[in-house]
Amino acid sequence: MATFATHLVVVVVTMLFLAMASAEMLQDVCVADLSNAVKVNGYTCKDSTQITPEDFYFKGLANIAATNTSTGSVVTGANVEKLPGLNTLGLSMSRIDYAPNGLNPPHVHPRASEIIFVLEGQLYVGFVTTAGKLIAKNLNKGDVFTFPKGLIHFQKNIANSPASVLAAFDSQLPGTQSLVASLFGALPDDILAKSFQLKHKQVKKIKLRYAPKK
Amino acid sequence: MATFATHLVVVVVTMLFLAMASAEMLQDVCVADLSNAVKVNGYTCKDSTQITPEDFYFKGLANIAATNTSTGSVVTGANVEKLPGLNTLGLSMSRIDYAPNGLNPPHVHPRASEIIFVLEGQLYVGFVTTAGKLIAKNLNKGDVFTFPKGLIHFQKNIANSPASVLAAFDSQLPGTQSLVASLFGALPDDILAKSFQLKHKQVKKIKLRYAPKK
Amino acid sequence: MATFATHLVVVVVTMLFLAMASAEMLQDVCVADLSNAVKVNGYTCKDSTQITPEDFYFKGLANIAATNTSTGSVVTGANVEKLPGLNTLGLSMSRIDYAPNGLNPPHVHPRASEIIFVLEGQLYVGFVTTAGKLIAKNLNKGDVFTFPKGLIHFQKNIANSPASVLAAFDSQLPGTQSLVASLFGALPDDILAKSFQLKHKQVKKIKLRYAPKK
Amino acid sequence: MATFATHLVVVVVTMLFLAMASAEMLQDVCVADLSNAVKVNGYTCKDSTQITPEDFYFKGLANIAATNTSTGSVVTGANVEKLPGLNTLGLSMSRIDYAPNGLNPPHVHPRASEIIFVLEGQLYVGFVTTAGKLIAKNLNKGDVFTFPKGLIHFQKNIANSPASVLAAFDSQLPGTQSLVASLFGALPDDILAKSFQLKHKQVKKIKLRYAPKK
Amino acid sequence: MATFATHLVVVVVTMLFLAMASAEMLQDVCVADLSNAVKVNGYTCKDSTQITPEDFYFKGLANIAATNTSTGSVVTGANVEKLPGLNTLGLSMSRIDYAPNGLNPPHVHPRASEIIFVLEGQLYVGFVTTAGKLIAKNLNKGDVFTFPKGLIHFQKNIANSPASVLAAFDSQLPGTQSLVASLFGALPDDILAKSFQLKHKQVKKIKLRYAPKK
Amino acid sequence: MATFATHLVVVVVTMLFLAMASAEMLQDVCVADLSNAVKVNGYTCKDSTQITPEDFYFKGLANIAATNTSTGSVVTGANVEKLPGLNTLGLSMSRIDYAPNGLNPPHVHPRASEIIFVLEGQLYVGFVTTAGKLIAKNLNKGDVFTFPKGLIHFQKNIANSPASVLAAFDSQLPGTQSLVASLFGALPDDILAKSFQLKHKQVKKIKLRYAPKK
Repeated sequence: MATFATHLVVVVVTMLFLAMASAEMLQDVCVADLSNAVKVNGYTCKDSTQITPEDFYFKGLANIAATNTSTGSVVTGANVEKLPGLNTLGLSMSRIDYAPNGLNPPHVHPRASEIIFVLEGQLYVGFVTTAGKLIAKNLNKGDVFTFPKGLIHFQKNIANSPASVLAAFDSQLPGTQSLVASLFGALPDDILAKSFQLKHKQVKKIKLRYAPKK
Repeated sequence: MATFATHLVVVVVTMLFLAMASAEMLQDVCVADLSNAVKVNGYTCKDSTQITPEDFYFKGLANIAATNTSTGSVVTGANVEKLPGLNTLGLSMSRIDYAPNGLNPPHVHPRASEIIFVLEGQLYVGFVTTAGKLIAKNLNKGDVFTFPKGLIHFQKNIANSPASVLAAFDSQLPGTQSLVASLFGALPDDILAKSFQLKHKQVKKIKLRYAPKK
Repeated sequence: MATFATHLVVVVVTMLFLAMASAEMLQDVCVADLSNAVKVNGYTCKDSTQITPEDFYFKGLANIAATNTSTGSVVTGANVEKLPGLNTLGLSMSRIDYAPNGLNPPHVHPRASEIIFVLEGQLYVGFVTTAGKLIAKNLNKGDVFTFPKGLIHFQKNIANSPASVLAAFDSQLPGTQSLVASLFGALPDDILAKSFQLKHKQVKKIKLRYAPKK
Repeated sequence: MATFATHLVVVVVTMLFLAMASAEMLQDVCVADLSNAVKVNGYTCKDSTQITPEDFYFKGLANIAATNTSTGSVVTGANVEKLPGLNTLGLSMSRIDYAPNGLNPPHVHPRASEIIFVLEGQLYVGFVTTAGKLIAKNLNKGDVFTFPKGLIHFQKNIANSPASVLAAFDSQLPGTQSLVASLFGALPDDILAKSFQLKHKQVKKIKLRYAPKK
Repeated sequence: MATFATHLVVVVVTMLFLAMASAEMLQDVCVADLSNAVKVNGYTCKDSTQITPEDFYFKGLANIAATNTSTGSVVTGANVEKLPGLNTLGLSMSRIDYAPNGLNPPHVHPRASEIIFVLEGQLYVGFVTTAGKLIAKNLNKGDVFTFPKGLIHFQKNIANSPASVLAAFDSQLPGTQSLVASLFGALPDDILAKSFQLKHKQVKKIKLRYAPKK
Repeated sequence: MATFATHLVVVVVTMLFLAMASAEMLQDVCVADLSNAVKVNGYTCKDSTQITPEDFYFKGLANIAATNTSTGSVVTGANVEKLPGLNTLGLSMSRIDYAPNGLNPPHVHPRASEIIFVLEGQLYVGFVTTAGKLIAKNLNKGDVFTFPKGLIHFQKNIANSPASVLAAFDSQLPGTQSLVASLFGALPDDILAKSFQLKHKQVKKIKLRYAPKK
């Protein structure tokens, strides 16, 4: 029995370190098998004979999300983790809802450019080039604006009424790095103090709002 | 002077055959210089010191388009030709408006996958795999669905009221090949007759609706 | 024993959802492991220590195939499914044989451009741009012609003798969507009737030749 | 003459909006023509018959740079702008010199991952995942560490003696967005105040060190 | 007039450093403008309104080439330089003709994998992995074999009658580096002597057959 | 029990044919799971919750390697096989140490361009284009030079003292095909004799130094 147990452990443990999806379409569809224990670059596919219309469908962007957050904005994603049919398609969407004067604070998407369509409200949006130039504009309902890959960008609701945008990305999992949260949630005090030239006391105060990730 | 004239002709003629944009981002932004005489793969960029917020902005998707067409649907693009800042970003949007029971007939996008969000109405949408399997579903307002790259797909308004969707693509210029129009607008009668196994009379009748492109 | 049985089921079931190959070469070779239960984007590789010359070899294109089909043409593929060494190489071939006056009806390859060499006979071949322009030409033995990615194209034998071409693709699995078969084999009657503006009776008649895929 | 003048203006103006380099190698080499008036995605190539060994050579990383900057670090690039032969190669280098306790403050490269080799000294380096996890380590002379594409990272000299690293990137022009400088050099006060939850007074004070780019 | 002359020189000289084609298809077709003075990564496109079927056609592979060369083989290319419609398609073909016992000596294609179809004759073909393993096989008429990207490979006619193959590549301009010719045609004697551990006398003797490129 | 044994064999055998990593980053990091029995294009990832700073760290380039080899040079790699965090990053490094007058003989990297920085010494380095042109230069400490993807290149220590370079590649596993070793270690005598136009006796003599790989 020992050999069975041993083999089994080897196999199960191995499974824990497997699974992936590729960056280019090598067949019609590769629906993500999200529950798979195997870990890979992206996601493995479910058997193509088992795909259903539901694999390519998501209804989670239909409604306005509660915007009572610290910054007054909420992002709801429709990426491969929610819509497995997006696996290998290099495409995803998000809905962003804003409280009156709410802000989607400065952030970067490491793996995608973004294009937004204003569903409702008035926003001030922009991005910063690596040369430090701000490209920003006021948007109204129905307007479209785009943010190039990897550059710092933000959107702010400039009205006293709620606002919403629909965003699309050229990645099934663009990733989001919220700058203030990443900096003050993860970096050591001395790095932050020297970077912002703030007193340690000030750094600690800002950090209170961002419990370091465990 | 003759030599000047000659040089000038050489130069101007050469210009008529130039200009391009690349498939990957090699700098922060490369805003398309759409009016450039030079022809390239994509578009050349305007001088980066001359970019403005307007280059990344488009308001042409704000309103419902007139849908009194033969099939009862109209596609309004927000691609690099309308929004030059999309050049090299590998991303674009379209708005599709449908008359009651209007149809966006079967077509393929040679260079992009597509994801749609229903702005208004009820639609029956789907795509066909190369194995000939139909993946289709009824959608309501706020629903999201996706169509994999290069596969035949369609959307039909299944209600007696107008409908609209917002579509995003993983290409700044996805291209659209409407199948019936391409087949009956461009192919010779005998190819069509043999392909559809229709009588030439029937082929000619369908062709009447599609004047061959000059 | 129950735990063994349980683990085993978990493992085996997991296996049913695994396996893939990538879009770029990340080592010398990645020979497809076609029999693998794991499903991925492309195919997993067999152990590189086990590769043999046969993995890179295929003899199935040597002979003319029987062309007594409804359209009078037969495509024989030498893609990754037949020639596992092509996995990750982004390249494949096909042989197309035509009966006298046989037709390879309008179709698209969602994932590849195509280049053909006429082994025997005389053909009329062409493709249609997304602008609806037909680019077509008569070819003789030894001629080469190319069809851009994702565009509708066809070849017709214009002689009363058999013809054959050798085709190459920039994908190890280009995929083929035969338009008439996909449209009339998969789409609902009302979509087809409205798309082609045919009577339901005519649609049903054409459909008889294309039993919907199960 | 007027027509000559007019044509000439057209041509020269057109030239001002042209020139590009592609993302993939389509020939052996494409040495950047940096002085070209044409603007493209990357750089155009000089005539391949005119290339010399100097096009592939750079000596600017040989010496330690002066590190008497506000943060005590200096980055010297060996990218396509300095080494034109790198055009289309998707590769570049930088040398980073640090004063005792000098810091290369948190930044992102929108278009590249980075790998560093410690030429001299002791450093504390790290990056933050989009999940907010800090991956950091102390490095000594000869150690190698890598920072994934688009993620926030930093290096700090933790010794009282100078330090230097050699960095390589998988892009000929990776781009650098220094976070504090970009945020406080480019964004409006209210966005910063709300993002960092700082008083406008504090924001203005930090901003003093970063004159907005003109 | 001087200013005209000056401008003209500026413009014409600039033209000499321009022109390119991209690595991905950003529109239906981008037919290479081969005569363009502008140099870029690939080729610029001719105006899409000017394309003709001839741009996608080549007849130069129809006939057997004279094989009375030093090694008894001749390669005839159908790449973008001969077939401009291949520009951006990432695909090309070659015909290789062999004298009895002729050899296509060891070479590498820096930018493409290769797949061959034997038109006539019997060949011994193979490639060498970076691990130094030879993967080789005898082929007969109609057989298909593939050579992975960047690996050393060769084909030898093993019969006393002529042979021919049709080769396809996943690049519109794969490039060929014939090893013996490149080594003995370009490298200094001492590098060759030390690499092959040959006497300088032997090196000079082999070099006689390969006049260094000017 | 037999069924357990059988299932187990199936599972374990299946495991032997699995495992892969992709060519593009589809999440923040995908640390290679090098010990995984599964074989794929690249490597599978370890569970992202299990990553540590050590996964992104390597100290094996810190010291000079023994250079008492036949050619007087040694290459020490810092690729994905040594530094698992490089998986999917498309980047790696090597350290090359040279004995006085040592040579890194002519070779190609099938999957990467290379850029080098001279840590110590004086070298003569160069590459050969597919047109047979040698691009070579003498380098001193601190100099940078680059070798385009897939082209033959070499470095020779031209001083009587040791030399060292740090090399970077745009691939996590660039691969190296040493030409003389590959040719004389793997190819049949007759191919070599005809390629180099050497006598079989001379071929056999050179081959003595390169035992064919088993």
